[in-house]
Amino acid sequence: MTAPATPFTGVIPPVVTPLTADGALDRGSLERVVGHLLDGGVNGLFALGSSGETAYLTPSQQDEVIEVVTKASAGQVPVLVGAIETTTNRAVERARAAIALGADAVVATAPFYTRTHPTEIDRHFRDIAAAVDAPLLAYDVPVCVHSKLDPELLLPLAADGVLAGVKDSSGDDGAFRRLAIGARDLPGFSVLTGHELVVDAMMLSGADGSVPGLGNVDPHGYVRLHQAAVRGDWAAAAAEQDRLVALFDIVGAAVPGTASATAAGLGAFKTALMLRGVIATNVMSPPMRRLDGTETAMIAAYLDRAGLSRV
Amino acid sequence: MTAPATPFTGVIPPVVTPLTADGALDRGSLERVVGHLLDGGVNGLFALGSSGETAYLTPSQQDEVIEVVTKASAGQVPVLVGAIETTTNRAVERARAAIALGADAVVATAPFYTRTHPTEIDRHFRDIAAAVDAPLLAYDVPVCVHSKLDPELLLPLAADGVLAGVKDSSGDDGAFRRLAIGARDLPGFSVLTGHELVVDAMMLSGADGSVPGLGNVDPHGYVRLHQAAVRGDWAAAAAEQDRLVALFDIVGAAVPGTASATAAGLGAFKTALMLRGVIATNVMSPPMRRLDGTETAMIAAYLDRAGLSRV
Amino acid sequence: MTAPATPFTGVIPPVVTPLTADGALDRGSLERVVGHLLDGGVNGLFALGSSGETAYLTPSQQDEVIEVVTKASAGQVPVLVGAIETTTNRAVERARAAIALGADAVVATAPFYTRTHPTEIDRHFRDIAAAVDAPLLAYDVPVCVHSKLDPELLLPLAADGVLAGVKDSSGDDGAFRRLAIGARDLPGFSVLTGHELVVDAMMLSGADGSVPGLGNVDPHGYVRLHQAAVRGDWAAAAAEQDRLVALFDIVGAAVPGTASATAAGLGAFKTALMLRGVIATNVMSPPMRRLDGTETAMIAAYLDRAGLSRV
Amino acid sequence: MTAPATPFTGVIPPVVTPLTADGALDRGSLERVVGHLLDGGVNGLFALGSSGETAYLTPSQQDEVIEVVTKASAGQVPVLVGAIETTTNRAVERARAAIALGADAVVATAPFYTRTHPTEIDRHFRDIAAAVDAPLLAYDVPVCVHSKLDPELLLPLAADGVLAGVKDSSGDDGAFRRLAIGARDLPGFSVLTGHELVVDAMMLSGADGSVPGLGNVDPHGYVRLHQAAVRGDWAAAAAEQDRLVALFDIVGAAVPGTASATAAGLGAFKTALMLRGVIATNVMSPPMRRLDGTETAMIAAYLDRAGLSRV
Repeated sequence: MTAPATPFTGVIPPVVTPLTADGALDRGSLERVVGHLLDGGVNGLFALGSSGETAYLTPSQQDEVIEVVTKASAGQVPVLVGAIETTTNRAVERARAAIALGADAVVATAPFYTRTHPTEIDRHFRDIAAAVDAPLLAYDVPVCVHSKLDPELLLPLAADGVLAGVKDSSGDDGAFRRLAIGARDLPGFSVLTGHELVVDAMMLSGADGSVPGLGNVDPHGYVRLHQAAVRGDWAAAAAEQDRLVALFDIVGAAVPGTASATAAGLGAFKTALMLRGVIATNVMSPPMRRLDGTETAMIAAYLDRAGLSRV
Repeated sequence: MTAPATPFTGVIPPVVTPLTADGALDRGSLERVVGHLLDGGVNGLFALGSSGETAYLTPSQQDEVIEVVTKASAGQVPVLVGAIETTTNRAVERARAAIALGADAVVATAPFYTRTHPTEIDRHFRDIAAAVDAPLLAYDVPVCVHSKLDPELLLPLAADGVLAGVKDSSGDDGAFRRLAIGARDLPGFSVLTGHELVVDAMMLSGADGSVPGLGNVDPHGYVRLHQAAVRGDWAAAAAEQDRLVALFDIVGAAVPGTASATAAGLGAFKTALMLRGVIATNVMSPPMRRLDGTETAMIAAYLDRAGLSRV
Repeated sequence: MTAPATPFTGVIPPVVTPLTADGALDRGSLERVVGHLLDGGVNGLFALGSSGETAYLTPSQQDEVIEVVTKASAGQVPVLVGAIETTTNRAVERARAAIALGADAVVATAPFYTRTHPTEIDRHFRDIAAAVDAPLLAYDVPVCVHSKLDPELLLPLAADGVLAGVKDSSGDDGAFRRLAIGARDLPGFSVLTGHELVVDAMMLSGADGSVPGLGNVDPHGYVRLHQAAVRGDWAAAAAEQDRLVALFDIVGAAVPGTASATAAGLGAFKTALMLRGVIATNVMSPPMRRLDGTETAMIAAYLDRAGLSRV
Repeated sequence: MTAPATPFTGVIPPVVTPLTADGALDRGSLERVVGHLLDGGVNGLFALGSSGETAYLTPSQQDEVIEVVTKASAGQVPVLVGAIETTTNRAVERARAAIALGADAVVATAPFYTRTHPTEIDRHFRDIAAAVDAPLLAYDVPVCVHSKLDPELLLPLAADGVLAGVKDSSGDDGAFRRLAIGARDLPGFSVLTGHELVVDAMMLSGADGSVPGLGNVDPHGYVRLHQAAVRGDWAAAAAEQDRLVALFDIVGAAVPGTASATAAGLGAFKTALMLRGVIATNVMSPPMRRLDGTETAMIAAYLDRAGLSRV
């Protein structure tokens, strides 16, 4: 896939990874998730992101996810694949595997577990980009990796052709604004927000698109939001965003103090997809628990309130 | 290896991983590191810990490290091996590989990258322990995984036979004291400190032993310290510790602001081992840089000051 | 001042506190700052906020600031005054002093220095509100107080009439969105953003106004931004915001690593006001240093680039 | 009081501040606390520290505390007084008030609320020391002020005669060890630990004494611990420390999730003193709640277990 100017735009959801009751990949359900997202009109798919439980999957399980997503999407939209590993050599290994299995682009974070430094993060991305023949996007997710990718780090990497874009889940919207302004002169660099509660605001700030985890549940809503923003109908975009903010209440269904934020959030997405008839179970990877019946009922109520169909 | 009562005691250094100029494992140097440590009188070896650049090594590189360390130590002391992965299934995969390659015990952290919760950490250790037929130690390292293993979490796991010990690198010495007191009635549970600047103090607090990164450079010193503490000669233990604190100044040799704390610290350990004639190069895994000539000269001066031989 | 429905709207800059060469309050310069802001069309003034060096001023110095600001503004716009103290009794003491000196409303943070808890923060605001006969606004500034005021805490306080508004400098725009949506049914509760780089985006999210530190330097710009947003001209609002983001580069004028972020940021605001002829010096409260000649020249260049007049 | 070489040694508890039922200072109870501590054999008193609810007291309340403590102790031991304020001018104001009211030394933290920088912290301490004619000690308490006082910052201030000592409540025992080693050549500089669970270990590391909050409850125990350490009887010191660690369980009496760590910890100290007949109530400053009857009963049981008398 030759990289066009700003190739990664629009809504590119981080695809959830459905599991069977015994914890294996549920290939059929994953195929249905892909179909559900394409039906919603999304512009790309991001497999093996945080919402895809990437940190919970062994390398062979990750390979299987890539196979299913690339096959099910069949070239209709670009497939970005996470190569989210602690350090460079490990990320390169996973990036190469992803490309070999059909990924159109790879996504990597800063090093984590270990302490790192801007000069090392810079080398990390340069080494990964040099090792794979596909666009590389940076994933800025301090809540997971505990360092922030500043515009001062990213823009030179973009200018040098190392990075084809960034998914910003930092929640630092001031830095995002400075990044988006700086990226205007870099047509091959996509600025995507993962800040799913303020996509309209980030589009106003100059985003090229979004990578919303909640977009698994309601891709149609995020696509409408994106299209309204692109045509300058900010009132419509904000109204759609407000509706999606209300829908996001599903992540609070887990009884407080009984699960991690990850288990509560991804568990809610999976439970909603189960209720909507897209996936078979809301099983989570160990050591996370699945949401229970009471929590599921609460999510069903939120779906009804948001006007989303259930089976 | 059948687990005796409190089997893991004494000095158990986290073994550094020497690399060749092109970044491959330097097997000869690693064998010499093992010999150097055994010569120092250490009571165990911890391969693939943070000081072993575990987060920088691919699974196949990790396998190679395990092979060399277990072969070189030849059963003289127990070999603990890190199975340090983001989540349960991945840690289980690495733990099984380690056992298959001859590890006597495995060491795992709390989940990282993802956000986690005490109930999930509890299940994480239980699932790993259930999956492998070898002692499991917990590695408490908040600076890397961003959660703390409290005594209230660890002691029930110890009582249930899930955990055979803990390596505490949390720096939370109050919690360590409470853990050590709580562990007195749990003879099969080893309490090891990774707090290399206050091993004497932690021995006074009730530690069974230590896992000092600096012990790569001066195993004899840490062994003397341990033995003095065991025989109750606290003045001698403190004097030895004070000398090692001065030696630890090597980690400040890297020019401030030019490298991560990890690169500066492990880089100093490797450079010291190179200067001492144990390993061939001070090459670091990407994206870290190796220490340069000026920094190396500074480390040489520190070694001289500490009375450590150089080649 | 009887509280109207949503009384605090529009641009309400946190007024800087000019000092003389020997560190005393420069009353004439402060009067000129007030005049400069009123000339810019601002809708209120916030004295003794973080940008006003509130944490650097003794109680008597704070009293003097309140006197000057209330006198100089002469009732043209409401004057909000910070009662920013570690805990309840201390904040009450300062709030009463502010009201006695003519403040129209007081602004308080969560407790700081000490560790706190949501139930304590709740009581803190209730006690302050009960002790003063004026509107109370909450100031959400985790970077200073190290706790976050969640919508779940603030909205009940608003519904109970305890809080008349919030200044949100948390940078957590997702929480801000949820707060703004929740505040729609609470007409007496003002939702103000302190996130000066994305005011347009926060207005789109539902803010009633802004409290931008940079508004000291360019009040006219923030007023134009606000007015564009209110009339729904989001393209104009975003263009104005983009210009202000560029102007914000002044906070990077201090040589990196030589001053705190506070000294660099507020120092830049003061230096810009000095260059614009509004205040006499850029002296900072101890222990902060003032910006030097080279740094001042850089700020002058940024002002020119932004099209702002200088003397 | 002329400063002798290392004047501040031994056990110097941070004195709690008893309150009446309506929240005023309970002068009689405070006098009894002082008597209780002197009876325990302490070597100094630290008024208006964190354990003294300093951040909860207005300036006039603080003055009253100083008056009572200096009068009640009547020169038997030195009285250190906290001048714990956000920045320099405010701390100077409080330091001067303390000296005027009879304090023998003042104690100040790094600036807080505002962000700060090592150069500013350095100037902060130099300015305070220059403004008062009494020894100044630094209080290293990152959990409250969110910056750490490194040995590299403190030792030059000690060498220059700016600082007469440090109370280290950082919990960073590696840094404490380096500080203690560096302070050996600075006889006028006292190194005190606030790490009350490992005082024995910190004495082994080179501390001159301790400032234990729990010392309010059991001063005799900490004095015994100190004396054992000074005479080199480390087994006795450790046994005493272990007993005090068990006593420290009182801070867990508050029902989890219902109070801040400060309210739970100081509340437990006050409740224990009430149960021991030293103070009249366990009232806490607003917005903290006092411990209730069930929590009080739990603390009584811990006192019994520790062998401490009750009324």
